[in-house]
Amino acid sequence: MLYCTHIQVNLPSHLSPEALDSLREREKSRALELQQQGKLVHLWRVAGQAANVSVWDCQDHDDFQATLGSLPMFPYFDIEVMPLARHPSALR
Amino acid sequence: MLYCTHIQVNLPSHLSPEALDSLREREKSRALELQQQGKLVHLWRVAGQAANVSVWDCQDHDDFQATLGSLPMFPYFDIEVMPLARHPSALR
Amino acid sequence: MLYCTHIQVNLPSHLSPEALDSLREREKSRALELQQQGKLVHLWRVAGQAANVSVWDCQDHDDFQATLGSLPMFPYFDIEVMPLARHPSALR
Amino acid sequence: MLYCTHIQVNLPSHLSPEALDSLREREKSRALELQQQGKLVHLWRVAGQAANVSVWDCQDHDDFQATLGSLPMFPYFDIEVMPLARHPSALR
Amino acid sequence: MLYCTHIQVNLPSHLSPEALDSLREREKSRALELQQQGKLVHLWRVAGQAANVSVWDCQDHDDFQATLGSLPMFPYFDIEVMPLARHPSALR
Amino acid sequence: MLYCTHIQVNLPSHLSPEALDSLREREKSRALELQQQGKLVHLWRVAGQAANVSVWDCQDHDDFQATLGSLPMFPYFDIEVMPLARHPSALR
Amino acid sequence: MLYCTHIQVNLPSHLSPEALDSLREREKSRALELQQQGKLVHLWRVAGQAANVSVWDCQDHDDFQATLGSLPMFPYFDIEVMPLARHPSALR
Amino acid sequence: MLYCTHIQVNLPSHLSPEALDSLREREKSRALELQQQGKLVHLWRVAGQAANVSVWDCQDHDDFQATLGSLPMFPYFDIEVMPLARHPSALR
Amino acid sequence: MLYCTHIQVNLPSHLSPEALDSLREREKSRALELQQQGKLVHLWRVAGQAANVSVWDCQDHDDFQATLGSLPMFPYFDIEVMPLARHPSALR
Amino acid sequence: MLYCTHIQVNLPSHLSPEALDSLREREKSRALELQQQGKLVHLWRVAGQAANVSVWDCQDHDDFQATLGSLPMFPYFDIEVMPLARHPSALR
Repeated sequence: MLYCTHIQVNLPSHLSPEALDSLREREKSRALELQQQGKLVHLWRVAGQAANVSVWDCQDHDDFQATLGSLPMFPYFDIEVMPLARHPSALR
Repeated sequence: MLYCTHIQVNLPSHLSPEALDSLREREKSRALELQQQGKLVHLWRVAGQAANVSVWDCQDHDDFQATLGSLPMFPYFDIEVMPLARHPSALR
Repeated sequence: MLYCTHIQVNLPSHLSPEALDSLREREKSRALELQQQGKLVHLWRVAGQAANVSVWDCQDHDDFQATLGSLPMFPYFDIEVMPLARHPSALR
Repeated sequence: MLYCTHIQVNLPSHLSPEALDSLREREKSRALELQQQGKLVHLWRVAGQAANVSVWDCQDHDDFQATLGSLPMFPYFDIEVMPLARHPSALR
Repeated sequence: MLYCTHIQVNLPSHLSPEALDSLREREKSRALELQQQGKLVHLWRVAGQAANVSVWDCQDHDDFQATLGSLPMFPYFDIEVMPLARHPSALR
Repeated sequence: MLYCTHIQVNLPSHLSPEALDSLREREKSRALELQQQGKLVHLWRVAGQAANVSVWDCQDHDDFQATLGSLPMFPYFDIEVMPLARHPSALR
Repeated sequence: MLYCTHIQVNLPSHLSPEALDSLREREKSRALELQQQGKLVHLWRVAGQAANVSVWDCQDHDDFQATLGSLPMFPYFDIEVMPLARHPSALR
Repeated sequence: MLYCTHIQVNLPSHLSPEALDSLREREKSRALELQQQGKLVHLWRVAGQAANVSVWDCQDHDDFQATLGSLPMFPYFDIEVMPLARHPSALR
Repeated sequence: MLYCTHIQVNLPSHLSPEALDSLREREKSRALELQQQGKLVHLWRVAGQAANVSVWDCQDHDDFQATLGSLPMFPYFDIEVMPLARHPSALR
Repeated sequence: MLYCTHIQVNLPSHLSPEALDSLREREKSRALELQQQGKLVHLWRVAGQAANVSVWDCQDHDDFQATLGSLPMFPYFDIEVMPLARHPSALR
């Protein structure tokens, strides 16, 4: 089942540069893992903004919640969730 | 170049059932054409809402404007546009 | 899988009293059906407002979309959708 | 009498990990107590968000206020309250 | 139990002057009745706006819903509802 | 002349528990004084929220501003003000 | 006592050109009257918008409500009201 | 003096195709005139939306108001106005 | 040329009482200067709020920007700007 | 390809005056570079606000993202992005 998310990342201003670097590295490696597992099927940067658009393929709402919650930056997400259904005019 | 759109469709209440049916048919056939041309690369229904999420592949802003404007329901769209850039953590 | 909806109903002002009555009757009978089938598990009126809060149990996003779309008043819904996951502090 | 709440939890960023753990533990045990007393009748996580949807059964507005205010995380809640009335199309 | 409402009245523009006059008369007489019954305990006009602030005393949420719904202009209300609890600093 | 206020209180997170207690005590005693003087005629808690609804009786806008500004928590108020006029359907 | 208003005028689209002209003429002549009486002390057009900013001098909230309500376009106003107090840094 | 506008055009749904065509033609020819006079210095379509971004060079606020008001579609504009000053980091 | 501003002042919570007093004193003396120079022609407090409404008379947008920017509290302003044109129904 | 941005700059309040000065200097020199390269084609201050309106000429979304991201103040931007297409009524 597919979910689309629009995520704005609000990193707290009090993090040290080292803490920030480590957080970004762990976020990136978890994002790569989730892509390799086929759970994060699309990941785009919104051009000009500290935001991204993603599409997730999860078994159910609990799996989706656990997947998102496994990202190290999850506590700093301002997130919008849209469950995606098949569109009647979609080719596939 | 990719663009993501979130489109809410607000059909006017004064259309006759026949005019509505014809509009929906023409919209669907144009959406299929744009998918076959590779311009409309993803098309999902937002579950539970009269809205969709789409991803478009266009040459430039003018092409994107012309592509969207060619949809018969374009005058009834309440639309949000996000130009998509490559995400540094994306696999591909 | 559970979905919570907050639905504001905006009936168009040009409907005749007869059309309104018929619409309300068909809406009510479809809502009863969906409750008997176990798809609409909670249905409350928000006190003082033309709005309701509901909880739905559907197989997946497509089933949820089809279920909501089968309500005669669906075209007049202003709807907010929240997929519900298990809460770590929930008893059951 | 039933009340529905949509609660977004905004934990302050300056809490130490120990203070956070203790706060979470006290919140969870109070939530379990309120469920066992029958005051908190439904508790769901909104999938993908730091938010929950709950349904409360209280004697009156003062009881509802006292119940919510007894939660250790109450000062960090961004809360929306909806008093729930019987829906004319509800089965029960 | 007390409820505070902030009501913006949006009369439809297609009503005839006679229908409007009749609606206003029926609204006023019902408002007077509800005040005499002690259900509508305060009724103020927000100065400069087509809005009012009211305080209602009802038995429960169902009674509150039925009371508001008995006003002839209810279908044209844009309404905000606040259940009122005792304030710890209130004299009485 | 009457004014209705909807006040959300946003206490800064850096206050010590002692400073908070002292602030609350001074706020309460000032609120009691203003009620005894007849300037604060109604004071309700919005159930479930860190907010209150109040009705003030002041001589003019300057008096209203001075009255509100005399509350120790005034700097932390997020406030909405509605001047109240007589409603044509009010009994008194 | 002074009140500042920000008024957006939303004329209904179904008025005939003659009805519109007559409405505008009556609005203008009432606005001139209120200026001559000293009740409407400032009247500016917000450049580029169908909106105006005005300052009113009225005896109390009831007088302010009656004054505004006497304008023929009052039913089409989308209005924001700000009671004005003396500013501690004002020269006069 | 420069003004930037973001204009969303909301054409009323009851116009006949002929009235729409005539309105569009008159709008276009007035826009060309204002560009030739140097009053409308930039005019862009926001890609994917029924909106435009423009930059105007006018003598003062009254001239700006008169210029915008001379556009046949002005009554259907939902407009945001930003007066533009020299930026301290601008090359020219 | 006239500009109307609605300014909400958001003083940072970490300022010491001495720094706050000094800031307020410098703000007041600059506001008095600008009134004596005829640049700040009206200055009102919005009753009950940490906000003010002002009217400015400046030569052009650059002068307006420089005038506002010369206020010591400018970095803490949440500001709305409205260029004011002559209203066709204004007496003067 | 052109992009219009409306950028509100929210500098964190904990920066030292020296850090602020250095940040502003680096921002200015990068802005000048981007103008000399022809990537930042217009840069205006919104009069009276801590905001600017800019027009960018970039090769594609990735180039636009990289260009904006190269500004030292980018992490403090609250930004709105509008891809600009040719307007059918534009002279050039």
